[in-house]
Amino acid sequence: FFFLRSTDMNFYISPFPDLLPTCNGEITTMSFLQDVVDILLQYVVKSFDRSTKVIDFHYPNELLQEYNWELADQPQTLEEILLNCRTTLKYAIKTGHPRYFNQLSTGLDMVGLAADWLTSAANTNMFTYEIAPVFVLLEYVTLRKMREMVGWPGGCGDGIFSPGGAISNMYAMLIARFKMFPEVKEKGMAAIPRLVAFTSEHSHFSVKKGAAALGIGTDSVILIRCDERGKMIPSDLERRIVEAKQKGFVPFLVSATAGTTVYGAFDPLIAIADICKKYKIWMHVDGAWGGGLLMSRKHKWKLNGIERANSVTWNPHKMMGVPLQCSALLVREEGLMQSCNQMHASYLFQQDKHYDLSYDTGDKALQCGRHVDVFKLWLMWRAKGTTGFEAQIDKCLELAEYLYNKIKNREGYEMVFDGKPQHTNVCFWYIPPSLRGMEDSEERTSRLMKVAPVIKARMMEYGTTMVSYQPLGDKVNFFRMVISNPAATHQDIDFLIDEIERLGQDL
Amino acid sequence: FFFLRSTDMNFYISPFPDLLPTCNGEITTMSFLQDVVDILLQYVVKSFDRSTKVIDFHYPNELLQEYNWELADQPQTLEEILLNCRTTLKYAIKTGHPRYFNQLSTGLDMVGLAADWLTSAANTNMFTYEIAPVFVLLEYVTLRKMREMVGWPGGCGDGIFSPGGAISNMYAMLIARFKMFPEVKEKGMAAIPRLVAFTSEHSHFSVKKGAAALGIGTDSVILIRCDERGKMIPSDLERRIVEAKQKGFVPFLVSATAGTTVYGAFDPLIAIADICKKYKIWMHVDGAWGGGLLMSRKHKWKLNGIERANSVTWNPHKMMGVPLQCSALLVREEGLMQSCNQMHASYLFQQDKHYDLSYDTGDKALQCGRHVDVFKLWLMWRAKGTTGFEAQIDKCLELAEYLYNKIKNREGYEMVFDGKPQHTNVCFWYIPPSLRGMEDSEERTSRLMKVAPVIKARMMEYGTTMVSYQPLGDKVNFFRMVISNPAATHQDIDFLIDEIERLGQDL
Repeated sequence: FFFLRSTDMNFYISPFPDLLPTCNGEITTMSFLQDVVDILLQYVVKSFDRSTKVIDFHYPNELLQEYNWELADQPQTLEEILLNCRTTLKYAIKTGHPRYFNQLSTGLDMVGLAADWLTSAANTNMFTYEIAPVFVLLEYVTLRKMREMVGWPGGCGDGIFSPGGAISNMYAMLIARFKMFPEVKEKGMAAIPRLVAFTSEHSHFSVKKGAAALGIGTDSVILIRCDERGKMIPSDLERRIVEAKQKGFVPFLVSATAGTTVYGAFDPLIAIADICKKYKIWMHVDGAWGGGLLMSRKHKWKLNGIERANSVTWNPHKMMGVPLQCSALLVREEGLMQSCNQMHASYLFQQDKHYDLSYDTGDKALQCGRHVDVFKLWLMWRAKGTTGFEAQIDKCLELAEYLYNKIKNREGYEMVFDGKPQHTNVCFWYIPPSLRGMEDSEERTSRLMKVAPVIKARMMEYGTTMVSYQPLGDKVNFFRMVISNPAATHQDIDFLIDEIERLGQDL
Repeated sequence: FFFLRSTDMNFYISPFPDLLPTCNGEITTMSFLQDVVDILLQYVVKSFDRSTKVIDFHYPNELLQEYNWELADQPQTLEEILLNCRTTLKYAIKTGHPRYFNQLSTGLDMVGLAADWLTSAANTNMFTYEIAPVFVLLEYVTLRKMREMVGWPGGCGDGIFSPGGAISNMYAMLIARFKMFPEVKEKGMAAIPRLVAFTSEHSHFSVKKGAAALGIGTDSVILIRCDERGKMIPSDLERRIVEAKQKGFVPFLVSATAGTTVYGAFDPLIAIADICKKYKIWMHVDGAWGGGLLMSRKHKWKLNGIERANSVTWNPHKMMGVPLQCSALLVREEGLMQSCNQMHASYLFQQDKHYDLSYDTGDKALQCGRHVDVFKLWLMWRAKGTTGFEAQIDKCLELAEYLYNKIKNREGYEMVFDGKPQHTNVCFWYIPPSLRGMEDSEERTSRLMKVAPVIKARMMEYGTTMVSYQPLGDKVNFFRMVISNPAATHQDIDFLIDEIERLGQDL
């Protein structure tokens, strides 16, 4: 390590005198980046190899001891940096692995990865056309296309890519409130009546989180009952709206869900739209998970009525397999986001620039700097075409049906709800031999509750596969299988079932 | 394009039958990704080449016509995908270019880039240890180190990497409110007294944006006067606090700024801390821009008093040159973020998992999915060591002083404020020959107002350099030079001055 202290006009102090931007740093830079890429390519190829582990699991305290992760005063060599990369990947989850089913976002798309690499090299922010001309245009093109698919005429409207579905949902709540009471922006909640929002008891927790953040309060989020499939019951929604109004509260938002997190349920959007229209309430559709089905001619009917929404959350990083993160909030009324969020910071959004300022989209965001999330979606869309996304999504749904058909009557399985899955969520209990035939009792319940966690822990220790579990309401821990990974095949589904049985038979 | 429709158990429908995860897709995948990397490496090397343009500027309508950017039903070939990449980069801003000074975030760090590429390949979310074991630990290690540098004993406290400084500042406001009135989470703003926050008139617009979003209202953000260097005047702060209390409002937050956006001013943190202590108000320091100076033994005195803050925003993607985005919110009191934001979603944060759940940090975030922003900072820190960051930052400050010394007495320049810059912000007017010696008058003001925008437009059209300008208060458009780009040298500063004179002499 040569610590350069020079008075040379062009000196550059760097712990790596050989890397760019140091003079003549090209060769070392190219070779360093190529070494990193070689490590990454190896990792990518291994990710898809069923003979490798999904995860080399270590407990937190073990992992902290396996390697020295600490930050120091002195620099490391490039060789050590490469070792850091290898070590990090050694303990990482292979989220592209064909047997990784743990989250709604799985898989690793090669074009998406390439696009994300380009995004990193371009290293810019989304707030103005000035500093992100292409990306700002691509966001414009892509959001318009997504609005078209939602069914808004000519793709008109507004929108933004935000850092995840929770923030997209929060935007919807923010804009809905502003639409009804624009004075809230200056005067705050103190100046307006008490608002209430409605969402189903199976909806994502971000609706409540948003209400807490926006000063509305979680008590003002009224949870509407669901049917046995996890769909919001419209009559209960209407009843609760009337009740709230009678109490003097102002209903301002219904957040319907298209694809719930656990059951994959689609709320009845047409009925909900009718109620929102009748009571003049902003209709938001949280399609973070289910929005992808709009790409499928076979499945998009499940979102019928979404074209009547005022806003839609749709996360291409889930069902469409775009690398994390990529979440869109779409808004039907143009200009509202801007009025709601703009602060006219003259140092960022100068009004006397030499180009069309309507492309400076930064002032409609809550963020100032905003990461370029659009390029990976755009490039994947170019690569697959809408038909490619459609085929990928149809395939995942077909696999879910395959799983459902395989286990619905199989010994040792109980479905959490009856009927064919609407999305790729398949929810089930595995009943180990010792619990089969046992009557419903407190003992059975308390033993069943522990089955999924133990099997899951064993899955992770073996590193063979990963699938999520959770309790829900009065239902004890059950597996929630979801398939968004385009690498998964029928054989991987078979493997999952075999593995659950292998790991759970002694419980 | 071969649209596979097969009943084979392992079929995978892909518009690219040759790319992974398709069987035997390794060779094509490696070669495709390598082609992309070659394009990127070429771009990276060119970024640092002073003989290339910073930008190949096109107006939005031109750029829309230069290429077909639209999304279609049918897929494109891999060759076309590579062309898309090349075209996107052709029109991108070279943010690593040594003469790109337009934003607080400039430069392109090679280790940071490598780390971001690895992050993309790992493609996971930050909410649980389960799916991001290494990254969650690295976030823990890195935040602790940052808190140590802030000066909190033993690096104790809490924090999170958030999608940008605006969101970090919003977190601070959210947590400060919760600390004072925890019932706001359930009951909303209706249940608590009217709050007021204080920040300087030179502070970042995100403080107001946050207040609007959180239901506090922009009117409840009281702007404190600054001295001629843009520093908050403590006596004015105290006066306004007393005034607000007399009106029955509850002061809950002072957001001091360490490194203002335009002037680069550091608010007097010790005096502000005394006032916050006296009136029991949460002290937040927005060090998004200035936080980096904590890495410098020479400059960190400018943030003296920050160790008394309750929360700190610090964006390593600015002064430390980490690729976008990387913003940390640090909180002195542990556990508060969790209480403030947690919703206990049982489907995500299961309480019966087999490892130490304190590493499941997702429930303290506003986001659900959260991008891995830590790895690039961590790897750069390993590569440079604290001393490497220090050298890089000291160099940028030294260049700012060089610029200041060069123009402070130069014909045709007027400084916006007197004295040596505290950060790398150098604010000045260029006075074209036709305006020199002209008396202060409406005509001069209105002509001077147009000088910077025209020079800037010409810079972009020539593509030679980029620097930002803005008006501020009663001061008409002036240039705000900032240096965060480690590639910049004294010669680049000389170039900037020559270029401003070349492009502005006829105005």
